[in-house]
Amino acid sequence: MRLSQLPWTTLKETPAEAEVISHQLLLRAGLIRRLTSGIFTWLPLGLRVLRRVEQVVREEMDRAGALEVLMPAVQPAELWQETGRWDRYGDLLLRIRDRQERDYCFGPTHEEIITDLARRELRSYRQLPVNYYQIQTKFRDEIRPRFGLMRAREFIMKDAYSFHMDQASLEVTYQAMAQAYARIFTRLGLRFRTVEADSGEIGGSRSQEFHVLADSGEDAIAFCDADRFAANVEAAPALPPPGARPAPGAPLQAVATPQMRSIEEVSAFLKVPATRCLKLLLVEGSDGGIVALALRGDHVLNTVKAGRLAQVAKPLTLASPERVLALTGAPTGFIGPVGLRIAVIADHAAAALADFVAGGNREGFHQTGVNWGRDAAEPATADLRNVVAGDPSPGGGGPLAIARGIEVGHIFQLGDKYSQAMKAVVLDQDGQERVMTMGCYGIGVSRIVAAAIEQNHDEDGIVWPAPMSPFDVVLLVLNPKNSEAVTATAEAIYLELRQAGMEVLLDDRDARPGVKFAEADLLGVPHRLVLGERSLKDAAIEYRHRRSGAEEKVALGDVLEFLQQRLAGAAPG
Amino acid sequence: MRLSQLPWTTLKETPAEAEVISHQLLLRAGLIRRLTSGIFTWLPLGLRVLRRVEQVVREEMDRAGALEVLMPAVQPAELWQETGRWDRYGDLLLRIRDRQERDYCFGPTHEEIITDLARRELRSYRQLPVNYYQIQTKFRDEIRPRFGLMRAREFIMKDAYSFHMDQASLEVTYQAMAQAYARIFTRLGLRFRTVEADSGEIGGSRSQEFHVLADSGEDAIAFCDADRFAANVEAAPALPPPGARPAPGAPLQAVATPQMRSIEEVSAFLKVPATRCLKLLLVEGSDGGIVALALRGDHVLNTVKAGRLAQVAKPLTLASPERVLALTGAPTGFIGPVGLRIAVIADHAAAALADFVAGGNREGFHQTGVNWGRDAAEPATADLRNVVAGDPSPGGGGPLAIARGIEVGHIFQLGDKYSQAMKAVVLDQDGQERVMTMGCYGIGVSRIVAAAIEQNHDEDGIVWPAPMSPFDVVLLVLNPKNSEAVTATAEAIYLELRQAGMEVLLDDRDARPGVKFAEADLLGVPHRLVLGERSLKDAAIEYRHRRSGAEEKVALGDVLEFLQQRLAGAAPG
Repeated sequence: MRLSQLPWTTLKETPAEAEVISHQLLLRAGLIRRLTSGIFTWLPLGLRVLRRVEQVVREEMDRAGALEVLMPAVQPAELWQETGRWDRYGDLLLRIRDRQERDYCFGPTHEEIITDLARRELRSYRQLPVNYYQIQTKFRDEIRPRFGLMRAREFIMKDAYSFHMDQASLEVTYQAMAQAYARIFTRLGLRFRTVEADSGEIGGSRSQEFHVLADSGEDAIAFCDADRFAANVEAAPALPPPGARPAPGAPLQAVATPQMRSIEEVSAFLKVPATRCLKLLLVEGSDGGIVALALRGDHVLNTVKAGRLAQVAKPLTLASPERVLALTGAPTGFIGPVGLRIAVIADHAAAALADFVAGGNREGFHQTGVNWGRDAAEPATADLRNVVAGDPSPGGGGPLAIARGIEVGHIFQLGDKYSQAMKAVVLDQDGQERVMTMGCYGIGVSRIVAAAIEQNHDEDGIVWPAPMSPFDVVLLVLNPKNSEAVTATAEAIYLELRQAGMEVLLDDRDARPGVKFAEADLLGVPHRLVLGERSLKDAAIEYRHRRSGAEEKVALGDVLEFLQQRLAGAAPG
Repeated sequence: MRLSQLPWTTLKETPAEAEVISHQLLLRAGLIRRLTSGIFTWLPLGLRVLRRVEQVVREEMDRAGALEVLMPAVQPAELWQETGRWDRYGDLLLRIRDRQERDYCFGPTHEEIITDLARRELRSYRQLPVNYYQIQTKFRDEIRPRFGLMRAREFIMKDAYSFHMDQASLEVTYQAMAQAYARIFTRLGLRFRTVEADSGEIGGSRSQEFHVLADSGEDAIAFCDADRFAANVEAAPALPPPGARPAPGAPLQAVATPQMRSIEEVSAFLKVPATRCLKLLLVEGSDGGIVALALRGDHVLNTVKAGRLAQVAKPLTLASPERVLALTGAPTGFIGPVGLRIAVIADHAAAALADFVAGGNREGFHQTGVNWGRDAAEPATADLRNVVAGDPSPGGGGPLAIARGIEVGHIFQLGDKYSQAMKAVVLDQDGQERVMTMGCYGIGVSRIVAAAIEQNHDEDGIVWPAPMSPFDVVLLVLNPKNSEAVTATAEAIYLELRQAGMEVLLDDRDARPGVKFAEADLLGVPHRLVLGERSLKDAAIEYRHRRSGAEEKVALGDVLEFLQQRLAGAAPG
């Protein structure tokens, strides 16, 4: 592509509307433009990136045996009413009424549509398993669209849905999708982690997320590269600390802690680290009573883990201050295990404490030198907390690290949640109707573009992973009007590289060299060539690698071979 | 693709919902499925056709220098209010309100969005001309969606919009688009005509439509292959008849024609052909008076042509029966030129009549032997009618033929209709702001799929033009379970053809041969191979050409070369 033929506008200033770097650079490099809140137009250079991502996704889905379809954006309310999501989905669902006063939505996801298709198209176990996918525009009416493509309202997604006779068949496709996703993100040149996740509102059993690692990520991921364990911090198991609990050494003492309700306040006042304080949370029990959950002072309750306890009411609900006061005689903030007449379930780390600080069950007082077994009954134990950096990996490979990630993919085992509600059945070998088992598999195609920038940029602009770059090579012609020889040589190289199958951006504009250099850096094409009168005198071209900044002079006759070697090299460019 | 891996359901019966053949065959061949009124899902085999069409469109748009972008489906009302179309567009516009109570629509077209983009991105004459295009999902809330993909509510369109400094620049791009469109439909293997059209509601000056010829088409097209003239019947000029008008020969006579108001009634009663009767239509004049339009009895008024007359009020409005009666003393149906005290404008064919029949300006009476000049004033003349088959072509090549067509493309010179309303300006060479001149260019991508079937089918199913077929070749394996040798040979051929770059559908299902033959015909792949035990004994494969039905035995070793020759042959397959 010739830049002289492209109305390309870059921005020197960072647009005020853009909070995150990917949004800033997408706007500054002229890849997208905002139409209105959370809705964007893809400009020619941005669309090239999007199409490259789509192509890799499509190839790997096809390779994994998935069948591409294209479902409508506009979906009738009736199907959403069958699964109950018409009411449950809330304001994220963009609702539409047509001229006949019938209700529709702009699809944010397609479980209802594909399940309706499957129950009409699929008749027999012989047709299963099937995995349908599409790459398509979706809409979620986010209450606060932000971060550009990261949380847009209109966005592009690859969504796939598989249908099976049983769980064993689902497992096979689910694993095939996990592998396809890993191939997709690897091929795109992204650093990512596959993490175990809780399946959230879509429901079902097992699920995994695919996160592009970036400091700006919204999610915290616990991982250990040695044993390849990775999970959302919320989903990672916290192992019991090794070794036995120390024996009690200090006497139990009450200490006045006026107005001090938080661990931070008590820890600072008593000069005892939070790691030796006990946090007690009183929640509603499943039998109508109250249950106490104990955590080490520096740990955070994991509500998903706690919510799974049989003794605890669903959904997890904190006991009211009135009930806490009536039960313990003390207000929240001063509750401790000594003399407490209810069941205590302690996180493993909390149960391993000795000589610790806890609430005194009396307003304005805590106790020091508290010990399980001696001063309070031995608690039941469970994993109740979020992991922290340094915790041992459940995979046994060493300590966990915590990194931030951007979720770009998610695979679910849905089970029969939708197929049961919508009566999606096939006949089995015995001629009996069987509800199909389902999986679903999403990739945020447009979000990948933003995530790639969050992970790959520097102060000068974007640093595309080579497989996603809008071009393989950018060729800058310096002062083309001054020298016919320079122009002619550049044109010859442009032709030569394109004939060899490379995507080349030729900067043949009548613009200052400084502008060309800055804009090429901003756009982030991995390989840059510069041709001017000076280099032409040496019969050479100046090469620069965008990511490393490494420069080299290349003889004109060697340019093609040089670049072919570069392009065949390490994928992340 | 292996059919054993595809859950493909064909229908033997014609679905009751489908009125036209393309809709019937798209459903029967399992290419699309209806989700709800006017909204369809593309199944895997149908999507392959759609993608092939998209690819040809994209290549030709790129080749013509257009720049691909992707604009949002959801468009804010504010932009449509700027052009006044928010109110004018009516119920075809699917309106949406988001959670913040802001108004949007699901874009049926993108003039407002692209003009908004252009006024923000384009600053200087140096950036022009620009031609942006996209291939994208649109929605029109048709009051009566029907004919499947022909008049769907959600559909896929290629829309392009060009921006220019002046009309001369627009003409260049407009011609480039006309040529690109012709290449697209030629490459797709469709018989089509490029026709002059009236630009209708989008406004502007010149426009041309591209019609796929098919008996079921909604539009009538007048064309002459000898001189390449083609136009919508409504837009084709009707030339004056050759030769001089005959001299008057018959006396003027009044005849009683009780209750006979129509040309058909009068013509039958008086035994005078309609070609010798005069039809007078009284319409509102631009000066507040009434104007009479005269047509030959067998001709139909062309309201666009008549509406352009300076003497006629805009929009064209028939005079009320009361005014007709007051002016002429006779009711509608009995009005004639003799003694009429208003201006008469006669179509050329009506002005060439002699000794004709006309209304008597008296209820229940007509006159015979009427002659211009002798009995009534010589009328002004103009082209006021639709052409009919046999009329001379305006191109001079001979008589016009009339055929039916399906509109699949439309190119417009918009002028400054949108750019003026939205103040889309750039700076010219003198630093002055200039409103840009625009063109727009649409192709109904999903509609092409239906139109191709309307044009190419027989009693057994679809007969795809080769460039649009979901596969190049279908290979039927007869009774694969009975013979390992047949299966092995089929697999080897399947591999060989695919390695040569062909798209092959392998029917490896455990199904009856009759089913395989019928379904292959229904699907309409141009080239069919059949391998069974019998043909294998002869070391041969049976070939059949879908369109011609021609059959041939081909030695197994020659299959690849045979097919390569076939595929390299005539494009329409």
